[in-house]
Amino acid sequence: MLAVALIVILTVKCLTEGALASNSSIDRKDRNREMSLQRLQALRALMSSQRPVLAAYIIPTADAHNSEYIDAADARREWISAFTGSAGTAVVTSSQALVWTDGRYYTQFEREVDLSAWTLMKQTLPDTPTLEKWLASNLKDGDVVGVDPQTMTRDEWTPIQTALKKISAQLVPISNNLVDDVRIELGDPAPKRSHNELAPLHVRYTGRTAGEKIAELRRKMAEKKASALVLTALDDIAYTLNLRGSDIEYNPVFFSYLIVMETNVVLYWGDGQLPPSVTDHLREEGVDSVEGKPYGDILEGLKEMARELSESGDGRHVIWLSNDANEAIHRAASGSDVLKRPIDLISEVSPVKLAKLVKNEIELQGFRNCHIKDGIAVVRFFRWLHDQIDSGEQITEVQASDKLLEFRRDEKDFMGPSFGTIAGSGANGAIIHYSPDREGQQTVIERDHMFLLDSGGQYRDGTTDITRTRHMSGNPTAEQKDAFTRVLKGQIMIGSALFPKGVKGNVLDSFARHALWEVGLDYGHGTGHGVGHYLNVHEGPSGVSWRPYPDDPGLNVGQILSNEPGFYKVGEYGIRHEDLIEIVAVDKGSDHPKAKNLRGDYDGRGVLGFSTLTLVPNQRECIDAEIMTDFEISYVNAYHRRVLDTLSPILKERGLLKDLEWLEGQCIPITRK
Amino acid sequence: MLAVALIVILTVKCLTEGALASNSSIDRKDRNREMSLQRLQALRALMSSQRPVLAAYIIPTADAHNSEYIDAADARREWISAFTGSAGTAVVTSSQALVWTDGRYYTQFEREVDLSAWTLMKQTLPDTPTLEKWLASNLKDGDVVGVDPQTMTRDEWTPIQTALKKISAQLVPISNNLVDDVRIELGDPAPKRSHNELAPLHVRYTGRTAGEKIAELRRKMAEKKASALVLTALDDIAYTLNLRGSDIEYNPVFFSYLIVMETNVVLYWGDGQLPPSVTDHLREEGVDSVEGKPYGDILEGLKEMARELSESGDGRHVIWLSNDANEAIHRAASGSDVLKRPIDLISEVSPVKLAKLVKNEIELQGFRNCHIKDGIAVVRFFRWLHDQIDSGEQITEVQASDKLLEFRRDEKDFMGPSFGTIAGSGANGAIIHYSPDREGQQTVIERDHMFLLDSGGQYRDGTTDITRTRHMSGNPTAEQKDAFTRVLKGQIMIGSALFPKGVKGNVLDSFARHALWEVGLDYGHGTGHGVGHYLNVHEGPSGVSWRPYPDDPGLNVGQILSNEPGFYKVGEYGIRHEDLIEIVAVDKGSDHPKAKNLRGDYDGRGVLGFSTLTLVPNQRECIDAEIMTDFEISYVNAYHRRVLDTLSPILKERGLLKDLEWLEGQCIPITRK
Repeated sequence: MLAVALIVILTVKCLTEGALASNSSIDRKDRNREMSLQRLQALRALMSSQRPVLAAYIIPTADAHNSEYIDAADARREWISAFTGSAGTAVVTSSQALVWTDGRYYTQFEREVDLSAWTLMKQTLPDTPTLEKWLASNLKDGDVVGVDPQTMTRDEWTPIQTALKKISAQLVPISNNLVDDVRIELGDPAPKRSHNELAPLHVRYTGRTAGEKIAELRRKMAEKKASALVLTALDDIAYTLNLRGSDIEYNPVFFSYLIVMETNVVLYWGDGQLPPSVTDHLREEGVDSVEGKPYGDILEGLKEMARELSESGDGRHVIWLSNDANEAIHRAASGSDVLKRPIDLISEVSPVKLAKLVKNEIELQGFRNCHIKDGIAVVRFFRWLHDQIDSGEQITEVQASDKLLEFRRDEKDFMGPSFGTIAGSGANGAIIHYSPDREGQQTVIERDHMFLLDSGGQYRDGTTDITRTRHMSGNPTAEQKDAFTRVLKGQIMIGSALFPKGVKGNVLDSFARHALWEVGLDYGHGTGHGVGHYLNVHEGPSGVSWRPYPDDPGLNVGQILSNEPGFYKVGEYGIRHEDLIEIVAVDKGSDHPKAKNLRGDYDGRGVLGFSTLTLVPNQRECIDAEIMTDFEISYVNAYHRRVLDTLSPILKERGLLKDLEWLEGQCIPITRK
Repeated sequence: MLAVALIVILTVKCLTEGALASNSSIDRKDRNREMSLQRLQALRALMSSQRPVLAAYIIPTADAHNSEYIDAADARREWISAFTGSAGTAVVTSSQALVWTDGRYYTQFEREVDLSAWTLMKQTLPDTPTLEKWLASNLKDGDVVGVDPQTMTRDEWTPIQTALKKISAQLVPISNNLVDDVRIELGDPAPKRSHNELAPLHVRYTGRTAGEKIAELRRKMAEKKASALVLTALDDIAYTLNLRGSDIEYNPVFFSYLIVMETNVVLYWGDGQLPPSVTDHLREEGVDSVEGKPYGDILEGLKEMARELSESGDGRHVIWLSNDANEAIHRAASGSDVLKRPIDLISEVSPVKLAKLVKNEIELQGFRNCHIKDGIAVVRFFRWLHDQIDSGEQITEVQASDKLLEFRRDEKDFMGPSFGTIAGSGANGAIIHYSPDREGQQTVIERDHMFLLDSGGQYRDGTTDITRTRHMSGNPTAEQKDAFTRVLKGQIMIGSALFPKGVKGNVLDSFARHALWEVGLDYGHGTGHGVGHYLNVHEGPSGVSWRPYPDDPGLNVGQILSNEPGFYKVGEYGIRHEDLIEIVAVDKGSDHPKAKNLRGDYDGRGVLGFSTLTLVPNQRECIDAEIMTDFEISYVNAYHRRVLDTLSPILKERGLLKDLEWLEGQCIPITRK
């Protein structure tokens, strides 16, 4: 699934449509419009009753963990504005209400929101002032702006604070979330946050015990002389403890905070009672001293820790936070409210993010294995879909998505989809953040449509994310065929690239666009995102895009990326080819199509390349071999050969002979006329 | 000439060997070594006599204008350490003396510097602490670190200050430069700073009057509500006033500061007496009110301005500085030493940098024209050089450089070299920042050598910068031929690229490396730098590199870049092909090799491509057509055809028939076997 990073936020926060961006709230829309003014009035009343009175209140989209997908309990901006897009920040003053969001959501905003009460700030237009500039020109000396500091990272907080200071106004943290308070007041309290059961993930899947991971963190803490490491990102915590949860849709994570200290570990989760299954698991994995504390006590707990460290009398202490931890966490950890001399903070990329970026051999084996299973499921699905449509059945996008899930459920260790399936037929395929709606009018996948299917699975041994685009009758127009082939050429230019170890993912991005750029075409999203191991399908801190990834430590063996160029003709069709790829070391003896020509290793830096994990063929009828080089043709044919060689024994063994036959047809080598 | 940006500094400060990096100081070296301890002792005594005493003193390379090339008057780090490299920062404490510099200079440092007194800090190695980290771990509570705030930009100042604060030490500005004081004390005062004559550049060369340029700046100031704009970069000032100077070698600039206000302009230059030639010129160009003030009064002048604005009683004032202005300028402009409530500063990329980045039509015509003249000079030179070597003459690299200058001097409006010629024969060609030394042993250009020649000229109508690599007998090895061709393929992939308007230069960098990366080869410098119009040969804020250029506003029509991939085999040979290229708009009707295939304009963003300005053929004998695509072969042949068609009428007219004959031979189309 493609990751479209927010331009104004440099942290790697991948934003895609998902639960929030779906259109499933259409019914709610009218109700929300009616309620819009009532809600705003109540919020404004609450702002006026604050001491000092708030001239403006900011409502970001983020939860306290800077999660990409958020829980309904955290959907405050959605509730107050009725705007359901996954990105956007609302600002409410006594007379105005505005939402800053990006180009993906302009139409949606205007459809969903009461425009008599709310103003859309199109943040991708050069003339739109930034939120901080708008505040600076619309507020006056002495004005106070409030925000829930748990919903804003320090990196977002600081520029707003600086801009307000310049006009002698100030940004103040309001610890009660005012939207939550308004919801209670209006009798529509936010749903309770989930604290679902935790499931240990065995070391045969993770490859490293929680004890080993924590020991490694402690070594890094010692290097930085940090007395404590505070983990706030939910996937960082799940990875470290080898635990998985289900508090957020698609992401197997759980609401929690984790503090690692020299001799003990504190997990803030639920009511603080860790069940025996968890403590047993951690003990087995070599984590002896784990203290459970209530999730809601994190800020008090951090302040208490800061106070203790400050009073310990054994010299200077430093606390290490991730730079995407929220402002409230930063304040509490430094003890800035309670200590005369606050504790020094290290606020930089979390060491867990860097650790989980590089998959270990067990994780890599899992990735390879789950892609075989996923390949079987997707091949079976496409064979089924072509059969249905060829025989005149009316299959809607939603039915197709459901059927695909059925096939994935047949596979071992399948745990659920890794994101909401994007099944876009015809013009829907050109809507980059499209997701078919279960409610209202359904789109049937027509025989003369290009059909774009972007989906993925969570397996205990890994996470998949694949997009294939197929013309349902195999008769694309010349223009579609040309675009399909150029997108494929871009994918091959990435997939076959050799490059020096340590370069950032950004340097590869233009390779994916070259064949499109040559004819004036492009696509409006990045080319690749990291993928977690049975974790979030979008994982930082690396990526392949024209946008900088400031925390990208450089590409290295064992990282997983998506490789997903595309082309979208609005109103007609969309094309995207997405594989997951694994970074491998390449030398003259490697099984890599360019290995034998190597005559250097970049002066000792080392040669990296990719191995494609995804195993589903691209539709032969859509490939124009005439605009491909010899190398590209043989690359595609070798890939299809590998898909067939890998999947056919399994299909045979499982007696899926019709699927096998179909796959064999798909993998016949392509040739030039 | 290649620009190797300093990794630790994000401002676009191109660092190449130049006057400072030459080996011409070899004789001075021994003397300096002897004097090293004496100088250090004197500096340490001075540090001890400061109140408070300085625990450390930092000596950056920069002058007060953050110039790439600096005057001898500013070569303080060189004087104290004897290290002549163009990049590096020295730190002296009571017991230690260190220089942080990058990989280009490790060998040179060890050759030049007294290693018993000085420690080399290899800043490109991951284990080397940064300067601020080193200070933080080697100093103690309460320690004071001094630096001349005129030699450090605010962007460099802030992280050091932050790191020191954490250990309760502090960074303080010392307004007297202590190295200058030591030089006086030891009877070796710094040479006097030049304030050479100023030469107006007529509007027939510049295309826009100084008055028009200043009016545009005032419009931008009004948008930002800035009461004053302080220009500190020497090329910004020369560009704005359409004046050229000769205070710094190769760069036609003059030591000065310029303050633009709503109704008047203040030029800090020399003793403040502006000669009639300058005031007349400015009046003719529509700049009515220019006040001259002594160069040395800038800081006092800024403080005075801050005080006046602060006391004016007409509301809030803002002063606009370039983000590469030094710390002393920032402090003075805000009045932070003299005002209770300092003036607010806008510290961002100078509007002049953005204005001069995009050349106007007159400047572009000048660029095209001076490249014809430069092509004639370089073609004549290479014909001469081959003749000499073929007839058994011993030509040294220095003699070749001198002869090239002679040929350039024959051309109209030639004003001098645009940088120190890099003429590297054989193994010298692999030394990226090589410059032949006039003193000591001379290297003869051998007939079986690859010879790399990187040179350029300043003309009144533009600036050139060209590298050609030639095998002197036309018999390269197969390996040399392969590398030569791959570098050329990279240059063609850039030169022929189409890309959306507004993308940053970074996105093109990998195109230049693709053919090299495929076989494990690379080069350790950027691919392209901006070029000034009869100004600095390295001009920001854009560039083509894997390194980010944070102030790059995006590529646009009318920008000039270099296109210079390379390959260097240490100890054997170096290859670099460098053209200057102009960004042009491309549509289906354009004269561009890919124009006719266009089927989109990137959804309205617009299609950009390049037109090559440089007009000198690449050596046919070094090109391996067998590893080139049909497109690449026809691209090279079309380029050679254009070179011949453009230069041959001039050679004919000037009766240079032997040169013409040679050029015709060079431009015969290449073909595959």
